[in-house]
Amino acid sequence: MANNNLPTLSAHLASLLGESRNQLRESVIPTLLHSIEDIATTLRSTQQVSHVGSANTFGDAQLNLDLSTDAIIRTAIQKCPSIITASSEENPVEKAVHDVPPTQTASSGETYTLAFDPLDGSSIIPANWTVGTILGLWDGSTALHQPPAERQIAAILGVLGPRTTAFVALNVPGCPKTCFEVGLADAEPKVLRTNVSLAPVSEIKTRYFAPANLRAAAQDARYMALISRFIEQRYTLRYCGGLVPDVVHALVKGHGVYVSPTTAASPAKLRRLYELVPIALVMECAGGRAVDASTGEDVLGKEIGDVDERGGLVCGTASEVEDVVKDLGLSGKQ
Amino acid sequence: MANNNLPTLSAHLASLLGESRNQLRESVIPTLLHSIEDIATTLRSTQQVSHVGSANTFGDAQLNLDLSTDAIIRTAIQKCPSIITASSEENPVEKAVHDVPPTQTASSGETYTLAFDPLDGSSIIPANWTVGTILGLWDGSTALHQPPAERQIAAILGVLGPRTTAFVALNVPGCPKTCFEVGLADAEPKVLRTNVSLAPVSEIKTRYFAPANLRAAAQDARYMALISRFIEQRYTLRYCGGLVPDVVHALVKGHGVYVSPTTAASPAKLRRLYELVPIALVMECAGGRAVDASTGEDVLGKEIGDVDERGGLVCGTASEVEDVVKDLGLSGKQ
Repeated sequence: MANNNLPTLSAHLASLLGESRNQLRESVIPTLLHSIEDIATTLRSTQQVSHVGSANTFGDAQLNLDLSTDAIIRTAIQKCPSIITASSEENPVEKAVHDVPPTQTASSGETYTLAFDPLDGSSIIPANWTVGTILGLWDGSTALHQPPAERQIAAILGVLGPRTTAFVALNVPGCPKTCFEVGLADAEPKVLRTNVSLAPVSEIKTRYFAPANLRAAAQDARYMALISRFIEQRYTLRYCGGLVPDVVHALVKGHGVYVSPTTAASPAKLRRLYELVPIALVMECAGGRAVDASTGEDVLGKEIGDVDERGGLVCGTASEVEDVVKDLGLSGKQ
Repeated sequence: MANNNLPTLSAHLASLLGESRNQLRESVIPTLLHSIEDIATTLRSTQQVSHVGSANTFGDAQLNLDLSTDAIIRTAIQKCPSIITASSEENPVEKAVHDVPPTQTASSGETYTLAFDPLDGSSIIPANWTVGTILGLWDGSTALHQPPAERQIAAILGVLGPRTTAFVALNVPGCPKTCFEVGLADAEPKVLRTNVSLAPVSEIKTRYFAPANLRAAAQDARYMALISRFIEQRYTLRYCGGLVPDVVHALVKGHGVYVSPTTAASPAKLRRLYELVPIALVMECAGGRAVDASTGEDVLGKEIGDVDERGGLVCGTASEVEDVVKDLGLSGKQ
């Protein structure tokens, strides 16, 4: 079906960024979105999902698809002179992207670091459920020991489902924070919604909750009480177990709260660099909040010291997140 | 990626059905699977998901996609002389498929009725989550007032996600009941798993539960207690809210229990003809069970009197279903 009435990506980026960030507008974001399309094509044609013999350095068993999708992004960013450093969940070491450093002219003086999880949701891929790609883009030559709220200037969530869509969050200094949804069906990406935002609770009819790590409620009376509250208050359950589709559900419906607490028996497993910090930027650019489930503090408020740092997550509609922080007693915990 | 080592659909059907049911093997099943591929293609290219002005006769608001996917199946089955009657959730009246009745020669003497839901999961389509197509095939010229366990001879669940897959259940008299998974990436469908079956609980490591209609637990102490039991026994939650992906998750993982109870405040809403009875056949052919959530009786044990009959559902691993029937006090209820 024709989608001709939708704004193009390039027109929308120009309206947001003006003449600034030439590489970001014309090279980085289009290339990253195109790589999400390539990942979707690879998934579609890969009938047999199998574990390969290796494990990534985090010890996770790796799917054949984890490796092939990692390669898609690494190959794609070779075309971007301004992306000079990259690391991924599959290969978590910051490395130079280009064998020969690009010239100042080629990169327009822009330099970026990409941190990415090419295929998030391995456990639900065999069941053919929607999965995602998570991309975080940082100003400069590293994502480590930087203030995320200032230096992570963009995040993209690729949604690999019956359609291929993406949520782009921009946090470029001097421009308003924004989040928009892109459809990747046509030759050129189209903007499906120019302003993705979580509505105030007073404006929404159906409230949604996504309780991750629910087994933790067996050991955590506060988490169990929170689940009971959601049920009694007639929230609708939506929890597929894929971080990207779970978060995107809230962005599309305009409401939702995702809760992934941590306990001694169910420790934190979401990676800060490859998962939490990009997700948090998307949430904040959509007017929501994202806090660490151990401390109740903003995910974007703390630097990343190591690629393997992990945490729990509470994110979504701001007032819902604040209520969960109170209910779980997270405020001020360290 | 090449999938050349997988059996073809036609070879697998021949191994199951021999020379019998020529039309079923060579026309009906291939045509229905091909229509699922066409639905996947339509979804992929439809960026804007919208509600059209009409409602189906059940009063549900209709998506543009509900109508276009309904038309895909209706057009496809014009090519099958043996499918003589069809009705769907979008257009729930049994009608003749062909203006001119096919000759005995064209139909090889086989006559089938198709009951289908072209696109199940409207609420999660905007979020780009996996959805499904549900097809039930009946011997003869109607699905009404027939014993489902004998006359519904096949059911197909199309899984519309990052890949396009389908589960085919066969219940052909004289042949063993069977369920297999098909991949629809290549020109000819390939059989991904020849024998889909739910494992005994003793053989599985991770147990899954999918609690539909969870808000009902606020009014139903037994349902709330059941949820608490699942959490305490450390079952893993997977509930996306689409009937096909939720059921398919259990088939792929080899374990799961789906519970959609009914209460006065949350009445039954799953249609018996278009949803419950085909799902139940797939479950039973995979060695599982599917019972009505009001009575605890087998879904396939009761004739369908009207296209609009509805019910709740408990299905999945047989012993889990039996435990839920006890916990919810369904046994012997009418």
